[in-house]
Amino acid sequence: MIDTQDFVAARRLIRRYANLTPICTSSSLDAICKAEIVWKCESFQKVGAFKFRGAINAVFSLPKEEAARGVATHSSGNHAQAVALAAKMAGIPAHIVMPENAPPVKVAAVKGYGGKVRFCPPTLEAREAGQKKVIEETGATFIHPSENLRVITGQGTALLELLEQAPELEAVLVPVGGGGLASGSARAAALFHPGLKVYGVEPEQADDAWRSLTTGKLVRPEHPDTIADGLRTALGPNTFSILSQHLAGIVTVSEQAILDALRLIWERMKLVVEPSAAVPLAAFLENKVPELTGKRVGIILSGGNVSFPEWS
Amino acid sequence: MIDTQDFVAARRLIRRYANLTPICTSSSLDAICKAEIVWKCESFQKVGAFKFRGAINAVFSLPKEEAARGVATHSSGNHAQAVALAAKMAGIPAHIVMPENAPPVKVAAVKGYGGKVRFCPPTLEAREAGQKKVIEETGATFIHPSENLRVITGQGTALLELLEQAPELEAVLVPVGGGGLASGSARAAALFHPGLKVYGVEPEQADDAWRSLTTGKLVRPEHPDTIADGLRTALGPNTFSILSQHLAGIVTVSEQAILDALRLIWERMKLVVEPSAAVPLAAFLENKVPELTGKRVGIILSGGNVSFPEWS
Repeated sequence: MIDTQDFVAARRLIRRYANLTPICTSSSLDAICKAEIVWKCESFQKVGAFKFRGAINAVFSLPKEEAARGVATHSSGNHAQAVALAAKMAGIPAHIVMPENAPPVKVAAVKGYGGKVRFCPPTLEAREAGQKKVIEETGATFIHPSENLRVITGQGTALLELLEQAPELEAVLVPVGGGGLASGSARAAALFHPGLKVYGVEPEQADDAWRSLTTGKLVRPEHPDTIADGLRTALGPNTFSILSQHLAGIVTVSEQAILDALRLIWERMKLVVEPSAAVPLAAFLENKVPELTGKRVGIILSGGNVSFPEWS
Repeated sequence: MIDTQDFVAARRLIRRYANLTPICTSSSLDAICKAEIVWKCESFQKVGAFKFRGAINAVFSLPKEEAARGVATHSSGNHAQAVALAAKMAGIPAHIVMPENAPPVKVAAVKGYGGKVRFCPPTLEAREAGQKKVIEETGATFIHPSENLRVITGQGTALLELLEQAPELEAVLVPVGGGGLASGSARAAALFHPGLKVYGVEPEQADDAWRSLTTGKLVRPEHPDTIADGLRTALGPNTFSILSQHLAGIVTVSEQAILDALRLIWERMKLVVEPSAAVPLAAFLENKVPELTGKRVGIILSGGNVSFPEWS
C-alpha cells in the first residue's frame, strides 16, 4: 500500500521536475454550480496533463541499473508523452508502442519528447505483443498508465498541491478513467487530509468504475464510447482496491452534460481543457452531487490536450 | 496630455476593482519565436478583456453629480460589457446603444452586467443618432472606447502591471484597433520605463493605424475585414497623437498568420483567447520584428471572448 513517505518523496521529486500548476476561480461558474469551486489547472502541467506527475515519479524512482535499460509503455495519449518526457529528463530511453492508426499529431508529440515509437496493428493483442517484444529486446521497465503504484502516488500529488493552495476545501472531484488520478488523490486525502471527501466522476458511456464500485466487483468496460477519450480506459486491481477503500462516492454523467461543461470552461474560464477534464463540472450541471451545494469544492482540470482543425 | 499622476491614480483604482491578471511563459512558443516571451493574460480580466481597465478608470473618475446621471456608449463588443460592469460596480446606470443585429449572446452579456440596452438600426448614422438621443434624454456621460483619455490611461495599466511582474522586459507588443491599449501602453512606458520599446501590430486587412503612422496623417479605415474583429475600429486624434510620439514601431500581419497564431496559443498555451489577441504572435510568425530576436519581450493577450458553437 502507498504510505505517507511515498507521497512525501513524490512531492519532492515533482516539485523539482514538474510545474506547480496554478489554481483559479470563476464567480459565474460558482453561481451555476451553487458551490465555491477552486480549479486546479493541470492543463498547464508539462505535456499538458497531470499524467506527467505519475511518469516523473515512476521514472525517477527506478534503481539506477534498471533505469539505464529504459522504460516502455503502450499508449496513444497523454501517458505516452509524459513517459517520453520524463525519460528524456532522466537521460534514459523510452519505448512507446503505438497503434499504426494513432493520430500523426500524437506520434509527433511523443517523438518530439524524444520517445522511440514502435508501431503495432491496432488491436489489444498486437499492442500487448509489441509491448512484450520491446521489453524482451531492451530490458526496459514497463510503466503502466494507472496500475503502477509509483504512477498512482505521483498523480496524487495534484491533490496535495491543491490542498496547499486551497486548504479550506471540503471535497474534491476528479474524473475517473483508469483510476490513477482518482486513486492517488483519494489515498493522499486519506493520509494527509482525513476530513476531505474525494468523489470520482465518470461518463455514463464508460462507466466500468461506477459499476465496479457499486457492485463491489471489478468489471471490464463494455464498449466504452465517450467524447471524454481519456476516460475510456478501465480500472485495474490496484486502482479498484484503493478506490473501494477511500472514495467518498462515484457518479456518472451524460455526454450532453460533458459537452455543456466543456463549453462553459472554454467560454467562461478562458481555459482550453480536454473533454475528460470537463467531466467533474458535468456532475454539477446534472446535480449529481447535491450534498456539495454551498460547499468549498476542488476540481482537478486533468488536461488540456485538444487538436483544433487546420484553419485557412 | 496624460501624465504620471494620472497613471498612479488609475493604478490605485484598478488594483481595487479589477483582477491582477497572471503572466505566463511557454518554452515551445519561445522556440518558435526565437525570443523570451512573457504573456500578460488579460483574457482573465473581468469581462474577459483589458477593456475593463479603461472603463473602470473612466467611470470612477467622474465627478459625483455627473456620475449620478450615468454613462453611455455604443459598442457591440468588449467595451460595452466593460462599461456596463464598471457602472454597475459604481452603482450608476449604463446606457448601451447596440445595433439591432448584434449577436444575442453579446446583448445578453451586456444585460447580464446590468447595462440598459437601446437598439438602433445597424448603420453608423443610426448608432450616432441613438447615442445622441440617449445622452439628451438622460444626461449620461459618453465614454468613447478609445479616444477618452481616462480610458487610454486605464488601458495603460496593463503594461504597468506587466512590468511589475516582469521588470526585465526590453519590448512589449500590443494589438492595435482603436489604439486605446497601444497608446495607453506606449505613454505609460515613456513615463515609467523610458528604455522599453512598445510596438503595435495590426491586421493587414485593417491597417488604418499603419497607414496613418507611416504617412504621418490620420486616415480612415478602408473596408476593414479581418477575423480579428476587435481590431476593425480606427484610430482617432488622441490615440494617433500619442502613438505618433511614443510607438517604437508598427507592423501588419496577414490573416493566415493570425489564424496560425490563434491555434498555437490555444493548443500550446491552453489559453482561450480571441483572434485580436493572437495578432502580436502573428508578427513573430511572419518575422515582422526581426530586431526582437533573442530579446525579452512582453505580449499583451488582449482578451478571451470567443463564442463556441452549440454542441449536441
